[in-house]
Amino acid sequence: MLKLASATDPAWADRVLRELPEVLLDHAHCEKKAAGVAIRLIFQYPDHAFLMGPLAGLAREELAHFEEVLAWLERKGLEFRRQRPSAYAGQLRKIVRDKEPLRLLDLLLCCAVIEARSCERLGLLAAALGDEPLGRFYEGLRKAEARHHGLYVDLACQLAARDEVADRLQEITHHEAAILADARPLPRLHS
Amino acid sequence: MLKLASATDPAWADRVLRELPEVLLDHAHCEKKAAGVAIRLIFQYPDHAFLMGPLAGLAREELAHFEEVLAWLERKGLEFRRQRPSAYAGQLRKIVRDKEPLRLLDLLLCCAVIEARSCERLGLLAAALGDEPLGRFYEGLRKAEARHHGLYVDLACQLAARDEVADRLQEITHHEAAILADARPLPRLHS
Repeated sequence: MLKLASATDPAWADRVLRELPEVLLDHAHCEKKAAGVAIRLIFQYPDHAFLMGPLAGLAREELAHFEEVLAWLERKGLEFRRQRPSAYAGQLRKIVRDKEPLRLLDLLLCCAVIEARSCERLGLLAAALGDEPLGRFYEGLRKAEARHHGLYVDLACQLAARDEVADRLQEITHHEAAILADARPLPRLHS
Repeated sequence: MLKLASATDPAWADRVLRELPEVLLDHAHCEKKAAGVAIRLIFQYPDHAFLMGPLAGLAREELAHFEEVLAWLERKGLEFRRQRPSAYAGQLRKIVRDKEPLRLLDLLLCCAVIEARSCERLGLLAAALGDEPLGRFYEGLRKAEARHHGLYVDLACQLAARDEVADRLQEITHHEAAILADARPLPRLHS
């Protein structure tokens, strides 16, 4: 199901875990942004009633994860604060077409790809941390991200035929892989 | 705790319940907007770490209520759709001062007042519907709104002394009462 166009170098996890405070903070912002994106779609597309319940449920789950990451920050003696985001999401967004319903289709599939990448990377962090409590936390989230990926793809399939969705998803995964290949190596989930 | 500057005429409930489909739809939008406002505060004030957890929890609860109202719409054979909002929230917002931290204080207290009014009106709807399932649903939400009111006031008290918060809250409740006194009687929770 999770077909990304590139695999992250397993050395990535060890590199970013050397800056765990930055990664935890970035992760908190990612969960917050994931909730924000789902809510924005709810506000922008009130006439697509089929989106409302699933996106509200997803946003609730992202907020719960946000709260859990805030608790991890606190446990580590760190405070939540503003952080310079990686360029990833803004660059990914450039592939979104203007015309509806293509715009909505692309937004949903961009979300699906972000969830897939988060899933992959949280899996790498979980593997690097092993049986530590933080590793188990990441492993739980990894499964949630996989579920969210599937949810976004399913919603996209209510707008277009499954083949068309699969083709567009592939295009977006290639765009995403190119962004990461060029990204500055920051201690971020998507960098 | 819930000190509004005016009491709604008890005849209000019977009047709006004659247009239940519109009221249910408005209520769904209100829950959605309540979640949206909390999320917007999270995004706008990342440097106020004390807001993050409480507002995330509150937004989660508002989203759960949104989903419950969507289920009520479905049960009644109604679809969620765009709806012209009442002027209430936009007019209330005019009292918000520009300069920080007054802006944030006012935003929190406007939310507190909206929750208080929702609490009052859901109570009137619950009383009018009695032991019907929808009445019991409103009664449950009424209690949640009272809790949310208290949460917003408590957050405001982290920005200013309790007396200052109480004075400003009173000013905002008077502004709110004047808005409702002038409002066109629409089948809306805040009209």
